[in-house]
Amino acid sequence: MQKIRLGVVGLGRAFSLMLPTFLADTRVQLVAACDPRATARAQFEADFDAPSFDDIDALARRPDIDAIYIASPHQLHAVHTRIAAAHGKHVLVEKPMALSLAECDDMIDACRVADVHLIVGHCHSFDTPYLRTRELIASGAFGAVRMIHALNYTDYLYRPRRPEELKTEEGGGAVFSQAAHQVDIVRMLAGSRATRIRAAVGKWDAKRPTEGAYTATLWFENGAFATLCYNGYAHFDSDEWTGWIGEMGQQRNADEYGVARRKLSRVTSSDDEARLKAAGTYGGNAYTPVSPVADARRHQHFGPLIVSCERGDLRPLPHQIVVYGDERRECIELEAPSVPRAEVIDELIGAVHGGIAPLHDGEWARGTLEICLAMLRSNAESRDVLIGG
Amino acid sequence: MQKIRLGVVGLGRAFSLMLPTFLADTRVQLVAACDPRATARAQFEADFDAPSFDDIDALARRPDIDAIYIASPHQLHAVHTRIAAAHGKHVLVEKPMALSLAECDDMIDACRVADVHLIVGHCHSFDTPYLRTRELIASGAFGAVRMIHALNYTDYLYRPRRPEELKTEEGGGAVFSQAAHQVDIVRMLAGSRATRIRAAVGKWDAKRPTEGAYTATLWFENGAFATLCYNGYAHFDSDEWTGWIGEMGQQRNADEYGVARRKLSRVTSSDDEARLKAAGTYGGNAYTPVSPVADARRHQHFGPLIVSCERGDLRPLPHQIVVYGDERRECIELEAPSVPRAEVIDELIGAVHGGIAPLHDGEWARGTLEICLAMLRSNAESRDVLIGG
Ligand SMILES: NC(=O)c1ccc[n+]([C@@H]2O[C@H](COP(=O)([O-])OP(=O)(O)OC[C@H]3O[C@@H](n4cnc5c(N)ncnc54)[C@H](O)[C@@H]3O)[C@@H](O)[C@H]2O)c1
Ligand SMILES: NC(=O)c1ccc[n+]([C@@H]2O[C@H](COP(=O)([O-])OP(=O)(O)OC[C@H]3O[C@@H](n4cnc5c(N)ncnc54)[C@H](O)[C@@H]3O)[C@@H](O)[C@H]2O)c1
Repeated sequence: MQKIRLGVVGLGRAFSLMLPTFLADTRVQLVAACDPRATARAQFEADFDAPSFDDIDALARRPDIDAIYIASPHQLHAVHTRIAAAHGKHVLVEKPMALSLAECDDMIDACRVADVHLIVGHCHSFDTPYLRTRELIASGAFGAVRMIHALNYTDYLYRPRRPEELKTEEGGGAVFSQAAHQVDIVRMLAGSRATRIRAAVGKWDAKRPTEGAYTATLWFENGAFATLCYNGYAHFDSDEWTGWIGEMGQQRNADEYGVARRKLSRVTSSDDEARLKAAGTYGGNAYTPVSPVADARRHQHFGPLIVSCERGDLRPLPHQIVVYGDERRECIELEAPSVPRAEVIDELIGAVHGGIAPLHDGEWARGTLEICLAMLRSNAESRDVLIGG
Repeated sequence: MQKIRLGVVGLGRAFSLMLPTFLADTRVQLVAACDPRATARAQFEADFDAPSFDDIDALARRPDIDAIYIASPHQLHAVHTRIAAAHGKHVLVEKPMALSLAECDDMIDACRVADVHLIVGHCHSFDTPYLRTRELIASGAFGAVRMIHALNYTDYLYRPRRPEELKTEEGGGAVFSQAAHQVDIVRMLAGSRATRIRAAVGKWDAKRPTEGAYTATLWFENGAFATLCYNGYAHFDSDEWTGWIGEMGQQRNADEYGVARRKLSRVTSSDDEARLKAAGTYGGNAYTPVSPVADARRHQHFGPLIVSCERGDLRPLPHQIVVYGDERRECIELEAPSVPRAEVIDELIGAVHGGIAPLHDGEWARGTLEICLAMLRSNAESRDVLIGG
């Protein structure tokens, strides 16, 4: 079995969400980490009997690392990618890829020059239900994709945040953070180049002055169009339309209500809020360690989505794909994942060891960021914005 | 009890959908009808022991009629309204009001000159769950409306049609016929003037060459925006998200699948198809008479819809309104309607006998048609179209 020795940059929430993968996927070995938070470093050293550093340079210099997983805040993705590449490490960088297309170009360049792979993820477009739906579409059995509808209503804006996560100029808000998933999924399923977008964004809580919601129409070269709708101020939770399976594939309790708003209401300042976020994350004093026993999870997802093709609608769900054909409705059952997000490791190992071109490479993720930036522009200028034009 | 003596113009499908109302609502007395179809006239005479005519003039001249329900094809709404008004009859005309704004202006004018009321409906914006949601919003308890999401996936395009129903120039397609409902509901809930729209329409079955689908973003003066999404080519049926209660408030059988497409596949020509439509309607040989026993129906609806306000999301459903507040989720149960679509008669009687200005008057419905026409234009010209500008 081909393995990958991984160094981690940023031991925060994104890392804690990838940790079940790193622990369960025997192809991955965590060999070092860096984070300015001492408590996170201490926890990492204790958990993995491996070194940790307070900055990326010391980490990137280590010869025993094949690839670096960059899970630092958005605004550091570009500089951290450049450092990793300069040391000849493959890069797995969290979404969104960066804050500007210039940064993306830099990152792509740096990795090309260093001859290392650049993969952007985890992103929900790695989720098996979407990947399988893409294969079904590619089979041609349903004809061309005509229309996609993607919707997600969450409490996104009321989860505890770092100050910059609430400032759009610094990469905050639902467009940078959440459209990064939804746009990526929709592009992948459309199977065609996006050509234009028209979006409206919602920014309606003065205490959290960034985008919490958006709606957008995205047009594709093949004539298909998509509706993308996200509401992170939501009280309604669209997991109700996904059998109460949550984004992480977990069974949710439908009776739990308003938890995020309730917790946040106790916070008194933005520092306090940043501390609350850090406390709940790796090494924090309210952090819940990953259970070593694999629990019975479904696949992860990013909200209800329907792809309408000429001869059928396809509906990816956490446990099945419902195929609504001209004559009959069928369910393609999906085996529960034994390792969550193993798809990310598949792609990383495939690229590094198998020479298989990754789906989620820098060019691809740049395309998604371009669309997200165009959403903000479309809203600001009240007009369509052309993509790739 | 104040009654209304109604003459009917057009005994087709719209009439058969209103018939349960006319039969159950003791405020209504059907006193005459007209239709070129002899079988429909014969059935009407037998059912109501009342006269019928083959054209509207003879009907409109009758002194025993207070109001005329115009349920003829769209393209006749304007001319029929003018005739009814000229004879001093109040007008209840089916949606869409007409095919052009000039026609709407004519109709409004004719009714004003004749001093008769003009009400446009039935439209699903009359449905109690939406009207009650509107009251909840107006109470101010949830703050301003920020975002509305309305979606409907149906087999609309595969129901049997008259030839002109498949030609956009003649008022065919989902925008004229179905957006007329959805736009009306969304405008009513937004409670603000629509200012601009951007839409994409789907026209992807060459054998039925009119719009079968659309998606649109609609902006309002108060800053709210709405997503309207309709797919009448659908295989997926969004009644699944309304507890399998259908548009007419009926309990649907989730196991029935693909019925409309299957029936239509036996049709060999457009004449054949028009005959199939007529056969299933009032007086036709495949017509199922309305059961005199009131069945246990829920309220009617037009697909899943969520209104997001500053301090809560409201979700009108056929049997309740779910109120998702900042702190808790509550359900406002709605009594099952004893008379379906009684709301239409309430408004008609209120106007005619109570002097209560109707919500769904000519100006209002003209506003909805303006938005529908702007949807078609926005798609054709690939840009935002300003409303009322
Ligand atoms: N794919 C997903 O499901 C997912 C989920 C959450 C976050 N993310 C992404 O992950 C990234 C981080 O977000 P987060 O929510 O984990 O934030 P976070 O604040 O929880 O974690 C960021 C971590 O990076 C550390 N850090 C800060 N500066 C650093 C530096 N110079 N070098 C190394 N580490 C540094 C912080 O101390 C913190 O531990 C973002 O780009 C976000 O979009 C992805
Ligand atoms: N609100 C609703 O739920 C609803 C449902 C269906 C239709 N409609 C509306 O009702 C209208 C009619 O559509 P439909 O589906 O019932 O069509 P239809 O073809 O079933 O019925 C139209 C009827 O009008 C008759 N007619 C034709 N020319 C006439 C004339 N000159 N004078 C009198 N009658 C004439 C036809 O013979 C037919 O019986 C349309 O505007 C449609 O949008 C509304």
